[in-house]
Amino acid sequence: VLVGPGDDAAVVAPPGHPLAITTDALVEGTHFRREWLTQEELGARAATVNLSDLAAMAAQPAYVLIAIAAPSEMVAADLDRLIDAFTARSEAAGALVIGGNLARAPVLSLTVTALGWLDGPCLTRQGAKPGDRLVVTGTLGGAAAAVSAWLGGGSPPAPVRERFVNPVARITAGRALAAAGAHAAIDVSDGLMQDLGHLCRASGVGAAIERERLPRLAEVRALDAAGADFAATGGEDYELLFAWPAEREAQLDDLARSLELPLTVIGHCTEDVDRIDLLLPDGAVHRTGPRAGFDHFAVPPEAPGRGVDVEARSPTRAGGAKR
Amino acid sequence: VLVGPGDDAAVVAPPGHPLAITTDALVEGTHFRREWLTQEELGARAATVNLSDLAAMAAQPAYVLIAIAAPSEMVAADLDRLIDAFTARSEAAGALVIGGNLARAPVLSLTVTALGWLDGPCLTRQGAKPGDRLVVTGTLGGAAAAVSAWLGGGSPPAPVRERFVNPVARITAGRALAAAGAHAAIDVSDGLMQDLGHLCRASGVGAAIERERLPRLAEVRALDAAGADFAATGGEDYELLFAWPAEREAQLDDLARSLELPLTVIGHCTEDVDRIDLLLPDGAVHRTGPRAGFDHFAVPPEAPGRGVDVEARSPTRAGGAKR
Repeated sequence: VLVGPGDDAAVVAPPGHPLAITTDALVEGTHFRREWLTQEELGARAATVNLSDLAAMAAQPAYVLIAIAAPSEMVAADLDRLIDAFTARSEAAGALVIGGNLARAPVLSLTVTALGWLDGPCLTRQGAKPGDRLVVTGTLGGAAAAVSAWLGGGSPPAPVRERFVNPVARITAGRALAAAGAHAAIDVSDGLMQDLGHLCRASGVGAAIERERLPRLAEVRALDAAGADFAATGGEDYELLFAWPAEREAQLDDLARSLELPLTVIGHCTEDVDRIDLLLPDGAVHRTGPRAGFDHFAVPPEAPGRGVDVEARSPTRAGGAKR
Repeated sequence: VLVGPGDDAAVVAPPGHPLAITTDALVEGTHFRREWLTQEELGARAATVNLSDLAAMAAQPAYVLIAIAAPSEMVAADLDRLIDAFTARSEAAGALVIGGNLARAPVLSLTVTALGWLDGPCLTRQGAKPGDRLVVTGTLGGAAAAVSAWLGGGSPPAPVRERFVNPVARITAGRALAAAGAHAAIDVSDGLMQDLGHLCRASGVGAAIERERLPRLAEVRALDAAGADFAATGGEDYELLFAWPAEREAQLDDLARSLELPLTVIGHCTEDVDRIDLLLPDGAVHRTGPRAGFDHFAVPPEAPGRGVDVEARSPTRAGGAKR
């Protein structure tokens, strides 16, 4: 860091590696309610959801910036706790806080930009091939189960709550999977089915997965069909979904042991582009398009058929080439 | 750009130069009201206020990311216009849009991260010396005069409105001033007096400036004392304030001509650290601390004396070294 926080911009030394850059926001009322989690948990979570995007690229986190918009009644001590936790979580992942911004707004929002070095192979959403095994880290549906409990007026069991308030960015796993030859990856932020759709669309493949195989905490499994639905479509688990060459499926056990992290095969890629089949336990097949899952931004009725997915729209507008 | 928008993160090739990075937000109700400006003007302005931070470092803009939080009733066509204008303004400055995020929120906010290469000398807030001339580009107070007119229920004259809705990031000027040997610079975003305070604090100098010298549009000058106050403390003009070696003051005329941009000497740096004197036309001196100007985030009464300036607080927390 040549110029740290406190100037018009931070300045970092030229790296010897390509640089991965991502930005993501947590908005009160959309992504969380303040009574659900402490300031410390919120600050750490803001770091994690962005570090997770770097994990999905197999990048080594290097720098983060945080733009906070906060209501005027929020006390400085709360902001301190939030920023301290954000800083600690970032630094634990190897990322220095090099900048920030603070503005007043009606609700609390945290917009983070994370930068990481690609000092090894890069994982993108492209590269999955028909026959590839689809594998997820950790467990799914816990965050959605926690939100459901809160919205229902209750309190989630501690392990379920933990999945929402304290997700883990799978940085080591992402880098190990890339080094071991994974074909593609995405982090599960919008819900498995939606993020699987993103991966399939980018790779030009379809997918078939089995609902019963979706890894769940015991507390989520106990919710039966609702728990299965949380695992399939609930977002914000920040696990990695990756495509893995079928002929090396046996290697996953070794990887899971060395990472001390469950790696679960939930299905495989197919040749049927944009067709994603979710096999239910009774043998029925729930067929979805590539956009199932939670969409923060419904298309308004004034503009039928128009999507507002910045990620999907920007390549042509920005003139940015996909690699 | 190795991986453009549409993946978990963008990936850019390793640069041969240090990288400047900044993040800043425009929040509806805090920084603007939607009836004040068009979607196109808002999108372009979001780019400019961030590019201005790069200009103050003398960096060449390379990449931008935009995180949009928008109310659900905002139509897709409006978002399109906003993003198109953001993209066009960024590209005109040499910066590609490499990523974005879209979330729902009660009010519209645009949080932009801008990255630029330092392929020449870097300007920071440090480096001003006693005796240095304090110089500003363009004119001051126009943006504040426009806001004042709107808040008063009127409409600002066109040239004044333009200063708010269509500020110019002084990228070429910043780089030329750095190359020509300016000692320090900051962009005037929070108001001249406050930003001058930042520069003085970082450089360990004081300052004396003359209010009558502050460059103003004729329409701002016509506002008399109010116009002078807008120029001294109004924010969001996005001009550059820089410290220039006194012995080369004559060179400023040539620079202004080649940049086709007024460069106005408004005062000089002194040895009295943190003492900033604003000389009024009647000979009186208005002495301010380093924090005059508009503060988006007042210190709440629960925490007397506690500042919540992320920029000022972060260096120790982040462990980031000032260069």
